[in-house]
Amino acid sequence: MDVAVLGANGGIGRRLLPRLEEAGHEALAVVRAEEQFDRMRELGAEPHLGDLEGTFAPALNGADAVVFTAGSGGATGWDKTLMVDLWGARRAVDACEERGIDRFVMISARGAADPDTGYEPLRPYLVAKRCADDYLQRSSLAETVLRPTTLTDDAGTGRVTAAFTPAGGGADIPRADVAAAVGACLDDDATVGHTIELYGGETPVADAVHPEA
Amino acid sequence: MDVAVLGANGGIGRRLLPRLEEAGHEALAVVRAEEQFDRMRELGAEPHLGDLEGTFAPALNGADAVVFTAGSGGATGWDKTLMVDLWGARRAVDACEERGIDRFVMISARGAADPDTGYEPLRPYLVAKRCADDYLQRSSLAETVLRPTTLTDDAGTGRVTAAFTPAGGGADIPRADVAAAVGACLDDDATVGHTIELYGGETPVADAVHPEA
Repeated sequence: MDVAVLGANGGIGRRLLPRLEEAGHEALAVVRAEEQFDRMRELGAEPHLGDLEGTFAPALNGADAVVFTAGSGGATGWDKTLMVDLWGARRAVDACEERGIDRFVMISARGAADPDTGYEPLRPYLVAKRCADDYLQRSSLAETVLRPTTLTDDAGTGRVTAAFTPAGGGADIPRADVAAAVGACLDDDATVGHTIELYGGETPVADAVHPEA
Repeated sequence: MDVAVLGANGGIGRRLLPRLEEAGHEALAVVRAEEQFDRMRELGAEPHLGDLEGTFAPALNGADAVVFTAGSGGATGWDKTLMVDLWGARRAVDACEERGIDRFVMISARGAADPDTGYEPLRPYLVAKRCADDYLQRSSLAETVLRPTTLTDDAGTGRVTAAFTPAGGGADIPRADVAAAVGACLDDDATVGHTIELYGGETPVADAVHPEA
């Protein structure tokens, strides 16, 4: 598959690109600046220029699947949360529908299931993620929503705990293992239609994200 | 009808309450503080305590219709736009569905139809309003979405221009005339399912918001 990654230069994106190539996919890395192209190529991806606050839809042309792992991050204002995490995600869903790109994997966040009970300073973020997730789930796309808990830069373990209904909590998870979970979902159509919380854990990723019959 | 007003102490809310009473409705004014109760009673409304960022659903008990004219306003951060204008509105829709309150009038904003072409500093606000409107429109409720342009505190004229598809623009509109339009919609079931932009204009309000057959 040709897999376009929105947020390719982020912590999960950079770990996802080489993994896609290893799995036999073609990774299209959508980034905001040409200065990022070399780095994307080094990670095994074909760089495309696109800005979630501006024009990015043409960068998706030719893709069979889209992974949304973009985020405005904690260093910018909540206005960017509205424009990137929420509106950018909605526009990405629309762009896929317009282009007939059927498969979509969303990196959401644990707590998006119930923002009112989330950590209070994070609630506006959880609202944005929840609304983006809802929009995707109500679209026509074949979607999987992944909701990892607190992310770390630790080395990946290849093992996670996955919860198909909201769990009370769990161990932090390395970004590398979230990237592995994205790859596993793209390779397992049984994950379509599922919303999966991700924690650090002991189950091999591909088994963890595969829903029980 | 018993009409609960969320944002009763705001510029549109305060103008709506006496109008509801004059039209033979019972106005339930949902406000955040008991200090606002006397003012609400002076405006002809029965005050109920409720906070859109906390608990407000019980304040809707007994209502036949809900008007959402709450907003975090320009003086607070975009986090409040997420928590009040977007999430508060979604929670209000949910609360109505849970209680069997079928009628809902949303005060949205011109430009919510296409946030990407809106005035740039306002775009995050337009995104929040758009997402709230979408959520309402996809609900089971009998809804009308009103999208007034720039609001003024001028005296009401009883006349407006209404656009049932997004117009390029138009004259500013007094808050009093938006309040009149809310009242007209509550009294005209033909407005259910419609999204109406509102501008200053020359057509009597009740005629303006009534869709042509």
